Amino acid sequence: MTWLERPPDSLFGIANLPYGVFSLAGGQPPRVGVRIGDWILDLAPALGDDVFGEPSLNAFMAQGRARWSEVRSRITELLTGPQHRRIVEAALFPLSQARLHLPFVPGDYVDFFGNEYHAANAGRLFRPGGEALTPNWKHLPIGYHGRSGTIVLSGTPVTRPRGQRKAPDQDAPTFGPSRRLDFEAEVGFVIGVGSADPVPVDDFAEHVFGVFLVNDWSSRDLQAWESRPLGPFLAKSFATSVSPWVVPLDALDHARVSPPPRDPEPLPYLADAEKWGLDLALQVRLNGRLVARPPFAATYWTAAQMLAHMTVNGATTRPGDLFASGTVSGPDRDQGGCLLELTWGGAEPLTLADGSVRSWLEDGDEVTISATAPAGGGTRLGFGEVTGQILPALS
Amino acid sequence: MTWLERPPDSLFGIANLPYGVFSLAGGQPPRVGVRIGDWILDLAPALGDDVFGEPSLNAFMAQGRARWSEVRSRITELLTGPQHRRIVEAALFPLSQARLHLPFVPGDYVDFFGNEYHAANAGRLFRPGGEALTPNWKHLPIGYHGRSGTIVLSGTPVTRPRGQRKAPDQDAPTFGPSRRLDFEAEVGFVIGVGSADPVPVDDFAEHVFGVFLVNDWSSRDLQAWESRPLGPFLAKSFATSVSPWVVPLDALDHARVSPPPRDPEPLPYLADAEKWGLDLALQVRLNGRLVARPPFAATYWTAAQMLAHMTVNGATTRPGDLFASGTVSGPDRDQGGCLLELTWGGAEPLTLADGSVRSWLEDGDEVTISATAPAGGGTRLGFGEVTGQILPALS
Repeated sequence: MTWLERPPDSLFGIANLPYGVFSLAGGQPPRVGVRIGDWILDLAPALGDDVFGEPSLNAFMAQGRARWSEVRSRITELLTGPQHRRIVEAALFPLSQARLHLPFVPGDYVDFFGNEYHAANAGRLFRPGGEALTPNWKHLPIGYHGRSGTIVLSGTPVTRPRGQRKAPDQDAPTFGPSRRLDFEAEVGFVIGVGSADPVPVDDFAEHVFGVFLVNDWSSRDLQAWESRPLGPFLAKSFATSVSPWVVPLDALDHARVSPPPRDPEPLPYLADAEKWGLDLALQVRLNGRLVARPPFAATYWTAAQMLAHMTVNGATTRPGDLFASGTVSGPDRDQGGCLLELTWGGAEPLTLADGSVRSWLEDGDEVTISATAPAGGGTRLGFGEVTGQILPALS
Repeated sequence: MTWLERPPDSLFGIANLPYGVFSLAGGQPPRVGVRIGDWILDLAPALGDDVFGEPSLNAFMAQGRARWSEVRSRITELLTGPQHRRIVEAALFPLSQARLHLPFVPGDYVDFFGNEYHAANAGRLFRPGGEALTPNWKHLPIGYHGRSGTIVLSGTPVTRPRGQRKAPDQDAPTFGPSRRLDFEAEVGFVIGVGSADPVPVDDFAEHVFGVFLVNDWSSRDLQAWESRPLGPFLAKSFATSVSPWVVPLDALDHARVSPPPRDPEPLPYLADAEKWGLDLALQVRLNGRLVARPPFAATYWTAAQMLAHMTVNGATTRPGDLFASGTVSGPDRDQGGCLLELTWGGAEPLTLADGSVRSWLEDGDEVTISATAPAGGGTRLGFGEVTGQILPALS
């Protein structure tokens, strides 16, 4: 069976064509491929272009939007024109035989906090009795820099972090494994074309190559103790998992929606003429049980606004720089993108498929985030999953 | 004149030997050199090792401490043994003919907040009426990730950032050039040998290759508005300047001192058996006038503690990862490492050499940070300066 006989309801059909980096046992070094159904098209031979023989997407991404469109058209032509069948089949490998790698070499990593439901819930839980949203929240997309060197591919096990934590009723902190380990379901964006100048909201698609899923693993006990006044540090820096397939922006045309109404209107440099909300339906599974359905369309700040904000101060960008949306949540309890919200700070544990309950992640737990998006004509496309299992802390 | 006739009081004598990356007009690509007096020794030909032909220190740094010591000994031998004069002179270039480059390719960049005088002053100024130090401050070295992609070499002009700022008496933020632009005099540390495991305090010298100076340019008005709850972002990400010469740890043996007394005792993973305080005397010049003498020895948390803390949660490190101390300040007003402290939030402007006054940096202003350290026998060694001039904001 080849891609031609793939099931018609595939989330990885011709409307998707996400890019990744793969290698085969005993084969050549890692190189760029496109996923079609449960197959990978090896792009260097299929397109006769060495840029796809690189072990990351960075060089191709740096070629810019016109080239991205041209390559996507050419891949579509190859995969749909029966006359190209010989070329295609010679470069097609079953996904099951491939080892996947990080799709790009990460540059700087910025994590935003762009979802109002999450920000307000986190505010209520971290600052009881205080304001839910800080006064700046609706004026700018709040963000901070994360650690690039600990970005790992989906499937990489995550060792429970150790660190300092102090309960409100304790006088001094103690050291040990995090007791409040959490996931955060987020959507990531990778920059293909860097810029020495600020990137206006409307130039978003000239710079951002594509979209993927992120699990921003978070230690809530470390975070609560360390974050004042400079923000989260060890609570986040131990690992950030990303999905293996980068869905190009062009595949998401049918997913574009208006973001939530803005009140107040943001300053002119953040005004969004084009609608860059994205109707991605996320799902989070904990040990196989579906525990959350975060709706990305509910995110207040768009990725175009995030990029405009991130660069308006003169900060330059490079190919491979990435940013994430912040935890995706919605108005309903089962739309929370992290355990902090789903269990309301641990007070209302979840029951899993085996009858066990969870306030926070336990050793051995596996979290899997997936997403789909409208692809036109009533069909949907899929994102590659981002999954990870918790290993016990170092002793 | 050659290095042999250098003035005997040189801050870059045989006890120093800092590493950098340089190129010559019309010559080979950038490569590694060592500074001796006002000369650069081109290491690839002098030592016959291609690792020094690389355009950064990263590959050499990754070779580890035993190799660093061996190379330092060999360079010392070359420069002091008259029988090597022919080899040396063939590889020696006047500093004035060289163009300097970033000495290493930056990986992740963490900025700490490890000086008690600075942290308490900043607390008083940013949180009037509140606690000077947050309750966590004496328990852990607070830090956050900065932007690697905007680390620039000393001498690179710095464009005034634009962004949102809101005065307490305003209802809403406005957008425009920062009005409270500041410098921060810091000391930086670059990791040579990365680690997949936590790095104990006592293993510091196995991993950190050397020391340099940092100006963590900061926009106080952007910072005050954006930082809650996730810390500084655009206020810092537009530029961070570093000095061109990395002073190896081995050159700083005579500068090692006990850090300030700890109260309370930190948790065991932060206990410092070896003394890694460093008696570096910093100087800050604003348009040529000496405006501050920050004493690095006053810094509460040592670099060894910072590295231990940064990795104790399982965060991995790579060659080229760097971290900075946070602003260096002392108990006296003229020991403040930033204008925020030197002018007490702008309330007590400084008078410069030309009679003009400064609460914050103006366009055209030039900030130069230098430092010296004891080098044994009553001599001192110098760090390369980190300097930068402010350009007007984009319009």
